[in-house]
Amino acid sequence: MAPAGIGDRVEGFHAVAAALAAGRVKKLTVEHQRLRHEAYAEVVSAAERSGIDVMRVDDARDGAVTEAPQGIRADCRPLQPVSLAAAIAAADPPALVVLDRVQDPRNVGAIARSAMAAGIPAIVVPERRAAPVSATAFKAAAGALEHVAVVTVNSVADALRRLRKADVWLVGLDGEADTSLLGLPLLTEPVALVIGAEGAGVSRLAGDLLDQTVRIPMVGGIESLNASVAASLAMFELARSRGWIS
Amino acid sequence: MAPAGIGDRVEGFHAVAAALAAGRVKKLTVEHQRLRHEAYAEVVSAAERSGIDVMRVDDARDGAVTEAPQGIRADCRPLQPVSLAAAIAAADPPALVVLDRVQDPRNVGAIARSAMAAGIPAIVVPERRAAPVSATAFKAAAGALEHVAVVTVNSVADALRRLRKADVWLVGLDGEADTSLLGLPLLTEPVALVIGAEGAGVSRLAGDLLDQTVRIPMVGGIESLNASVAASLAMFELARSRGWIS
Repeated sequence: MAPAGIGDRVEGFHAVAAALAAGRVKKLTVEHQRLRHEAYAEVVSAAERSGIDVMRVDDARDGAVTEAPQGIRADCRPLQPVSLAAAIAAADPPALVVLDRVQDPRNVGAIARSAMAAGIPAIVVPERRAAPVSATAFKAAAGALEHVAVVTVNSVADALRRLRKADVWLVGLDGEADTSLLGLPLLTEPVALVIGAEGAGVSRLAGDLLDQTVRIPMVGGIESLNASVAASLAMFELARSRGWIS
Repeated sequence: MAPAGIGDRVEGFHAVAAALAAGRVKKLTVEHQRLRHEAYAEVVSAAERSGIDVMRVDDARDGAVTEAPQGIRADCRPLQPVSLAAAIAAADPPALVVLDRVQDPRNVGAIARSAMAAGIPAIVVPERRAAPVSATAFKAAAGALEHVAVVTVNSVADALRRLRKADVWLVGLDGEADTSLLGLPLLTEPVALVIGAEGAGVSRLAGDLLDQTVRIPMVGGIESLNASVAASLAMFELARSRGWIS
């Protein structure tokens, strides 16, 4: 997906409501029967008051609207591209999440949702070999992708090199690491959390650039956590370490 | 789904491998082309050495095998039912998770995966008005549902009353609560974490029985987290409070 196209189609009730609030929606498509729900009716009224074209359809499941089970879709102006430099400057000290080939758009969306909750202002995603920041990602993000900046990069390795040059420490999650995530001193420094692919973890190319790998400490004999759960634990630990939450 | 039937169909590579290790598999169905991967070939050999019937098929996407993208399925003897009393006794002090109408089987699976990682030995799920502990849940659990006990109950409210009688404190996640999850003293006591439905939260009937509601503290102005992320943060906070992880 070209960077310019991120967010041009948004699905899911909360995601559509957030895109409307952000003023990005060009056209709304909604199932008739959803309008019995007050929340849907309010969103549609708000759209019509803003002069947005609203199309009512009978059944979303025919593929005309969405494959998602919430029967609402927005065609939007894409999100504004965000530079890596702007993303670095967006938190003090800098705090970013870099997704290195996360494959499931639902994980991308859930990570954006947790990033917003944890106060992390930007996620960095590669343009290729990873889940697109698709309508499904927007649905899972439940509105967070209107607020968390998405920096698309041609190469994760190149982005990591640029982060290092900007004095941002690179911390990767790795189930085999010796150091625990909990209480990691680096989290209060300028830092980027690097999250690898489901199962495979951080790629070798990105792994070679990391300053530190950490594991999420576990009691049970399980190999790994869901990627969005692992990323969320890391982001909330960062927020806690910095005193952003208590 | 009848309690006796939980786990009778398992999808996803890690989930199938775990069901095989647990000795529950009666029949394995796998896509031909998957067998080029060493891990798949090993699982199939292990199954055949154990005398398990293995069916090789051309294409999983015809619906004959699975809708999941991993091309492997196991028909199994169901999991042994576990009583609430046994689940209470499985940790010292007791630690359980109660799912009050969680709707998405992927969330149920991811919660089981995190429960195992956090050392929480049991999840309680209602038989109705909630996601079934289905093949999709098993896939998302990546093997954890072979280890974390699943207690199916007719009524969540009734289960909560029985937990109270057994001197287990009931702590529910609620975005509107005044008290933070972080550092909650009750987590070191016998406790059940009550997780509500995505969006709607804990039901009124269950909510009236809680001893304490807690919120996950957040920086950003987002309404809620993904249900499996929220549950995982709570479970890992419990493990950390008890010194199980550091």
